[in-house]
Amino acid sequence: MRMVDLIHKKRSGEVLTEQEITFIVHGYTKGDIPDYQMSALLMAIFFNGMISEEISALTMAMAGSGEMIDLSEIAGIKVDKHSTGGVGDKISLIVGPIVASLGIPVAKMSGRGLGHTGGTVDKLESIPGFQIELSKEDFIAAVNTNKIAIVGQSGNLAPADKKMYALRDVTATVDSIPLIASSIMSKKIASGADAIVLDVKIGSGAFMKTVDDARVLARTMVDIGVKLNRNTIAMITDMEQPLGREIGNANEIRESIEVLRGTGDKELTEVAISVAAYMSLLGKVFESFEQAQEAVRDIVMNGKALDTFKRFVASQGGDPRVVDQPELLPTASYHFEVLAEQDGYVNQIDAEQIGIAAMLLGAGRAKKEDQIDYAVGLTLNKKIGDAVQAGESICTIHANREDVKEVTSMIQGAYRIAASKPAPVQLIYDVIV
Amino acid sequence: MRMVDLIHKKRSGEVLTEQEITFIVHGYTKGDIPDYQMSALLMAIFFNGMISEEISALTMAMAGSGEMIDLSEIAGIKVDKHSTGGVGDKISLIVGPIVASLGIPVAKMSGRGLGHTGGTVDKLESIPGFQIELSKEDFIAAVNTNKIAIVGQSGNLAPADKKMYALRDVTATVDSIPLIASSIMSKKIASGADAIVLDVKIGSGAFMKTVDDARVLARTMVDIGVKLNRNTIAMITDMEQPLGREIGNANEIRESIEVLRGTGDKELTEVAISVAAYMSLLGKVFESFEQAQEAVRDIVMNGKALDTFKRFVASQGGDPRVVDQPELLPTASYHFEVLAEQDGYVNQIDAEQIGIAAMLLGAGRAKKEDQIDYAVGLTLNKKIGDAVQAGESICTIHANREDVKEVTSMIQGAYRIAASKPAPVQLIYDVIV
Repeated sequence: MRMVDLIHKKRSGEVLTEQEITFIVHGYTKGDIPDYQMSALLMAIFFNGMISEEISALTMAMAGSGEMIDLSEIAGIKVDKHSTGGVGDKISLIVGPIVASLGIPVAKMSGRGLGHTGGTVDKLESIPGFQIELSKEDFIAAVNTNKIAIVGQSGNLAPADKKMYALRDVTATVDSIPLIASSIMSKKIASGADAIVLDVKIGSGAFMKTVDDARVLARTMVDIGVKLNRNTIAMITDMEQPLGREIGNANEIRESIEVLRGTGDKELTEVAISVAAYMSLLGKVFESFEQAQEAVRDIVMNGKALDTFKRFVASQGGDPRVVDQPELLPTASYHFEVLAEQDGYVNQIDAEQIGIAAMLLGAGRAKKEDQIDYAVGLTLNKKIGDAVQAGESICTIHANREDVKEVTSMIQGAYRIAASKPAPVQLIYDVIV
Repeated sequence: MRMVDLIHKKRSGEVLTEQEITFIVHGYTKGDIPDYQMSALLMAIFFNGMISEEISALTMAMAGSGEMIDLSEIAGIKVDKHSTGGVGDKISLIVGPIVASLGIPVAKMSGRGLGHTGGTVDKLESIPGFQIELSKEDFIAAVNTNKIAIVGQSGNLAPADKKMYALRDVTATVDSIPLIASSIMSKKIASGADAIVLDVKIGSGAFMKTVDDARVLARTMVDIGVKLNRNTIAMITDMEQPLGREIGNANEIRESIEVLRGTGDKELTEVAISVAAYMSLLGKVFESFEQAQEAVRDIVMNGKALDTFKRFVASQGGDPRVVDQPELLPTASYHFEVLAEQDGYVNQIDAEQIGIAAMLLGAGRAKKEDQIDYAVGLTLNKKIGDAVQAGESICTIHANREDVKEVTSMIQGAYRIAASKPAPVQLIYDVIV
């Protein structure tokens, strides 16, 4: 088999076989196939796409390119959850304790990643003492004891995907549905998921800008799940504005605790409950979504989800007192209010701009080497649909420096305030099963 | 400027500016832009094409990536000629002496190349003593004295094209019209041509398989010529079967001499006369094609073209006696006849198969390092339309080894003999000006 012939085949619109795809992925991982052939193939895939059999084969080949985590020592269906990412997205922190309380094992591996804030594990590290590195044995024991553990992603999980993603990033081949879908699913499969709930975000703060694009990606990933025998549900949810009111690492831990206590932001709570309900459905604990949703609400209201969160934090070395004393979380030295410049209603909040503002404060990494400041972030005091008066605070900046001029003007630019009240925000656009 | 943004731009169907194309070509030549980004861009060009302004900019950038030959010390319009290549194509050897005899300076740089036989300079080297390496001064002096010199291509002519071609070869991006057209034209422009006649071949022995494809390539190259102020004419000629009757290096010198003497293969002579006439037209020696064609025929018939050939050979150190004593050219040790297996008419001769057979004998290079055997080759005793009887020789093999079983059966497979007489072969399909 010669790589040049396989590039030619894909370029000509033909279908690659499973054997050919495995040859490509393994050859590339080992370094037998050079970057310049891989990037030509990726560009050909960008143009000609892949059929569902090719995408599944690519997913399995990438999953199989490194370590495949074996979670068979954990009883029950291991349901994982993945979000395509957005600003203020702390859903994993909320739904983990909820579904664990319902008896579904949560054995989650999560990346740090680049972006507006840290990833789920970075946010957890803002809790004093929290350890995200557990041995495989301790990880499995923690899940068997508490039904939940969240650890950092191992270095050798789907290395083919890692190498291909780095190449796509510099060759303008990131935004290809088959490549995005297989990349996401390969990591979930390598980390041992039996079933997967996908949260595909759309809007100003998301990679996908329209419901139609998101539907294609969602459908593609659900199809991979079906083909590879992993029950998969994809939700399409809103990222027109940031999710919830808090952005930042400690900030988002605080807000997650509020939601688990039943007193959190209404919209964030609603999305989290739906995600948790779909996870419970895939965990075969309930027979209908309605039943699952009801149980999820109950487990939050009766305090059991918050108890699970406390136990989970303690079991990974974190200080569980943060739940009742949020002042024990890292706190920023300075707080500044961003004021509305006119009366009216909030009509838009550009999520991407808000995310960049948070990153500029130090809440996220622009480069891999950057250090995160857990204490800094933003609190959105007004969200879309809220009435606002000139001079009222729309956003609080949590900073560890005094000069926040640039950040302030970015936030002001991200808000659009107009005289008319906008239509209510839709939170969940579609669910693909 | 970032390469990844330019890849994205082309990938999205936008048009690259001249400045951007120059940045890419020079960056790639210097090694600042890595192969993996270039191959992604080339694949994007394969899919999205280039508009005529982009193709011209690419051509100039590649031409300008190395040495640009200055032929201004040679008086007159320097008309170059290029063929897209085929089996038995010795047109350059014939038209050079003809147009030189008409007063048009032929200052030709020619590659060795890979393929069925050597390139033009390899064929010339089969003449005992012939030197293809001249200093720039000697080259110019030779053209000023004899109106013709043919030398090997300098190492640093259009290095960007060389590097890009090697990359295209391993990334399935060879067959893209903008890339083929700019590659050909960049080398002609770098080697100092004022005007260019292009011979675009179609058929079983050519890269282009249909007249329509050839027309697009021809039109693209003529457009580049117009944009870059080099008068360009493209002829679309037949390569369904090999051109003329001889294939091999010394063989093709012999056949070229026959044509220059006026006793050569009729079809080969006709194509050569047309090419020479178009070159003379571009050299502004004649006002009409008919006038030029008439003059070309005269200069062959009155022996002046053959005299020029002799002087040209002698001036580059070759033995001019080969013209009258072809036995002074390298001769193969063995001759074998390939016999027709049935009565009928030759309906097809697969040029590519014939070419490969010649290469297997040693007439051409499969790899750059391969040595050419000047003496070996094939003589086609029957061509399309010829009547043939079972047992009659269709082809003579000139070999320097005794085992030619494989070659014989390839030749037999290349000939299709049928009961019905085929339609006459069309030699020139179109001329694009």
